[in-house]
Amino acid sequence: MINELVKDYNTTLNYDGVDGRRLAERLDAISKIGVLPTGGVSRQGFSREEKEAKELVAGWMKDAGLTVETDAAGNIFGRLKGKDNSQSIASGSHIDTVPAGGNFDGVLGVLAALEVAEAWKSSGYIPKKSYEVVIFSDEEGARFSSGVFGSRSYMGLVDDELIASLRDNEGLNLEEVLRQYGSSLAEYKKIQQRDWIFFAEAHIEQGKLLEKNNLPVGIVNGIAGQAWLEVEFKGLAGHAGNTPMNDRQDALVAAGRFISELEEIPKLVSDTAVATVGKMAVFPNGANVIPESVKMIVDIRDIHEDTRDTLLKLVTERANSIAEERNIGVTVSGTSRVKPVPVDEVYKQELHDILNELSIESMELPSGAGHDSMNIGLTLPVAMIFARSKDGISHNPKEWTSLNDCVTTVHVLKKFLEKQMNK
Amino acid sequence: MINELVKDYNTTLNYDGVDGRRLAERLDAISKIGVLPTGGVSRQGFSREEKEAKELVAGWMKDAGLTVETDAAGNIFGRLKGKDNSQSIASGSHIDTVPAGGNFDGVLGVLAALEVAEAWKSSGYIPKKSYEVVIFSDEEGARFSSGVFGSRSYMGLVDDELIASLRDNEGLNLEEVLRQYGSSLAEYKKIQQRDWIFFAEAHIEQGKLLEKNNLPVGIVNGIAGQAWLEVEFKGLAGHAGNTPMNDRQDALVAAGRFISELEEIPKLVSDTAVATVGKMAVFPNGANVIPESVKMIVDIRDIHEDTRDTLLKLVTERANSIAEERNIGVTVSGTSRVKPVPVDEVYKQELHDILNELSIESMELPSGAGHDSMNIGLTLPVAMIFARSKDGISHNPKEWTSLNDCVTTVHVLKKFLEKQMNK
Repeated sequence: MINELVKDYNTTLNYDGVDGRRLAERLDAISKIGVLPTGGVSRQGFSREEKEAKELVAGWMKDAGLTVETDAAGNIFGRLKGKDNSQSIASGSHIDTVPAGGNFDGVLGVLAALEVAEAWKSSGYIPKKSYEVVIFSDEEGARFSSGVFGSRSYMGLVDDELIASLRDNEGLNLEEVLRQYGSSLAEYKKIQQRDWIFFAEAHIEQGKLLEKNNLPVGIVNGIAGQAWLEVEFKGLAGHAGNTPMNDRQDALVAAGRFISELEEIPKLVSDTAVATVGKMAVFPNGANVIPESVKMIVDIRDIHEDTRDTLLKLVTERANSIAEERNIGVTVSGTSRVKPVPVDEVYKQELHDILNELSIESMELPSGAGHDSMNIGLTLPVAMIFARSKDGISHNPKEWTSLNDCVTTVHVLKKFLEKQMNK
Repeated sequence: MINELVKDYNTTLNYDGVDGRRLAERLDAISKIGVLPTGGVSRQGFSREEKEAKELVAGWMKDAGLTVETDAAGNIFGRLKGKDNSQSIASGSHIDTVPAGGNFDGVLGVLAALEVAEAWKSSGYIPKKSYEVVIFSDEEGARFSSGVFGSRSYMGLVDDELIASLRDNEGLNLEEVLRQYGSSLAEYKKIQQRDWIFFAEAHIEQGKLLEKNNLPVGIVNGIAGQAWLEVEFKGLAGHAGNTPMNDRQDALVAAGRFISELEEIPKLVSDTAVATVGKMAVFPNGANVIPESVKMIVDIRDIHEDTRDTLLKLVTERANSIAEERNIGVTVSGTSRVKPVPVDEVYKQELHDILNELSIESMELPSGAGHDSMNIGLTLPVAMIFARSKDGISHNPKEWTSLNDCVTTVHVLKKFLEKQMNK
C-alpha cells in the first residue's frame, strides 16, 4: 500500500513536525495485519490481529514518549504529560475492522492523533494540558454484534443484562473472550473513566459529500442518533385472481405507499435528517397471494435529538394514517434509540477558523454513522473531523483516502487540539 | 360432515329427480378419503387417495347407468349414451386436493355433474346428445407443482420438454408416477380428445362476491388468464446514515411507489382486471443499508386477452417511467402468460334466463383462478357456474358451501345442460 499512498503525495504538507511518509508507513504496516488472501483485512475486536495492531501502535506511542496504559476492555491510552499536569484532552479512534474491511476506517483517527504527538515532539511543543492518544477496542462490534463496544465499555454503558446476553460467533461469552484476550470480567467491571475534559476524533467520511464538493476535510456538525422503528402493516391475505381490486386489504400496497411517502418526511424536520427502509419481509410472500402482512425496519437519524424525535413522531403518524385510510392494521414500535450528539457551536467555529487559515473551504456535514465519539459525547464535549473518502466507499477493501487528505486531516486536528490546550 | 350438511337443508330443493341427501352422502363419503388427523384432506394427484376417490365415484357412475372409461392420465369419463348417439356434452371437475385442503373445491363439480345424470335417471329423461361426467386428474398440480395437469394432459398440452422436467416431491418423473398409478408413459403420449362439443363446470367461487351479494350461485363470465411479470428495480446501495436524502438511488422507494400506484391501473382497462404483487425480495435487506435492488412478481389477470395484454403494457410502462423519474434501473420480463377464456354471450344469457326462472338474482363474476375449463376452453366452448363459498375460503379445511347452495348449483347446471342437449 505504501507506494500507492506516497506516489501523489505533496511533500509541502510536511511542516510543523508532521511527516507524511511516517504516517504512510504506519498505515501500510497496520494494513498488513489481518490481511486476507482475497483482499481486505479482518481485525475483529478482541482478536489476535486487533491485539497485534494495538501492540504495534503502543510501541510507536512509547517511542514518541507517551506512557501507555490499557484498561480491562483492551482500550489503549498513550499519555503525554502536559505542562500543568492537569486534566487531559484526548483524541483517537479504533483499529479493529469489519470482516474484509478497509485500511482507513478507525486507523486514520488513531494514527492522526499519534502523528499530532509526533509533530509536537519534533517541534519541541509541550502542551499545557495532558494529551491522550486513544485506541478503542471493537468499534465495529463484529465480535459480539454489538457496535462501539470498547468505548461503551469505557463509559460504563455495558450493563450486567447486556453482558449476560453477549455471545460471539463461536458461542463464547464476554468473560471467556476477555480471558482469552488476557483480561478478566472482574477487572472489566471495575473500568474507570479517565481525567479527560474533551475528546476529538478524526475519521474517514464514509460518504461522498466531501468528494462531491472537492474538499479534503470537513467539520462534523453532529453524530446522528439512530432510532429504529419496527413497522408492521397487517391486512388480509386473499387470492390474487379472485379478489377484486376494490375489495382488498393488501398489506404490501400500504407498505409501498408508506415507503414511497417516507422520503419526503425528513426534510420537514431538518436538512440533516434521514429515514430509510432497508429491511423488509412480506408474508406469506407467494406470487399469487395478496400479502397479509409486511414488516419493516425504519432507520431514522438526525444530529439533534428534538428533530430526530419529531421525525419519529411524523413517521409513526404517517404509518397510522395510511393504515387508517386503507382500512388495515398497523403496529409501530421503537426497537432502539441512540441519543444524537451535536457538536458545540464553539468547536465548529474553531474548526471553520482553522480551515480558513489553511485556505480550505469549510463545510459542515453530519455523521450519519455512529462512532466512539458518540459514547464519549454523552457526558463530555466532543468534536469530529472527516477526511474525504474515495467514492464514499467504506467497510470494503476499496476504502481509500489519499495521503494528502490524511495529512491535511492531521494538520487540522493538530491545530484544533492546540486551541483546546491553550484554553 | 353429513350432519353439518343436512341440518339446515331445505328439502323443497328436492325436485326434478335431484336428491340433496344423496349429494350430501357423497360429499361426506369423499371427505373421508385422505382425511388428516390435523383436519382437512390430502388427495394429491396420482396418489392412492385420489385413485380411491375416483374409484368410489366411478362406482356411483356405473350405478347411475354410465359407461366408465379412463385415459392414461387417470382422467375418468362416465358416458351416458344420448338418443341420437351424437357428439357429447361434458361436465365435471376434479377430485384431488391441495395438501390439507377442503371438501368442495373440485368435488362439488364432479358430484353435481353426476347428480344431473342421477336426476335424469330418476325422472326418465334421456338426453338427445350423449353426456359425459368427467373427473380430471391432479387439477391442483400438487404432484408435479404443475397446475391443471390432468386436463392439460387431456388436451395434449404437456409436451416432451415439460415431461422431461417434471419431478414430484420424491424425485419421481412422470413415467415412474404413471407406472405406480397403473398407467404408462407410452399410453400417456397416445391420449386422444373425446367427442365433446361443449364443457360445463360447476365450482365453488373461492372468493366472497356471491356471499357479499347474498346469492347462492353466480355466472362466470370468463376465466382470467394469468400473466406474470418479473420486475426488478436496480439502484445503488448506500449507508442509511451517511447518504443524504437528496443523493439516493433507493430501489425500495421506487418499488414502493410502483406497488402503491399499481392498484390504480387495472380499472383503466376493465372491471374484471386485477394486478397483485405478492412476492418480493429486497437486496441486501440490511436495516441500515439503502436497498440496492428489489425484485418482485406482478401477477396480472383479466378474462379478455386484449385487456389483459393492455394491462401488461401499462404496468410495464409505469415501472419504466418510475425508474426513469428516479434515475434508477429497471428490468421487466414476462415469465408466464396463460390465455384467458371468456365465456360466450349465448351461454351467459342462457344462465341469466335459468336464474331468472329460479327467482335468483343473476350476477356475473370472473374466475380469477385457473380451472380445468380453461384448458378445454382453448378449443371448445365452455361455461362455468360458481357456488357461494363461505368467507371466500378455499384450499383450507374451513372451505364450506352449504348443501342448499350445492343443490341449487345442481339445478342450474342441470337446466343449463338440458338447454345444450336440445340445441
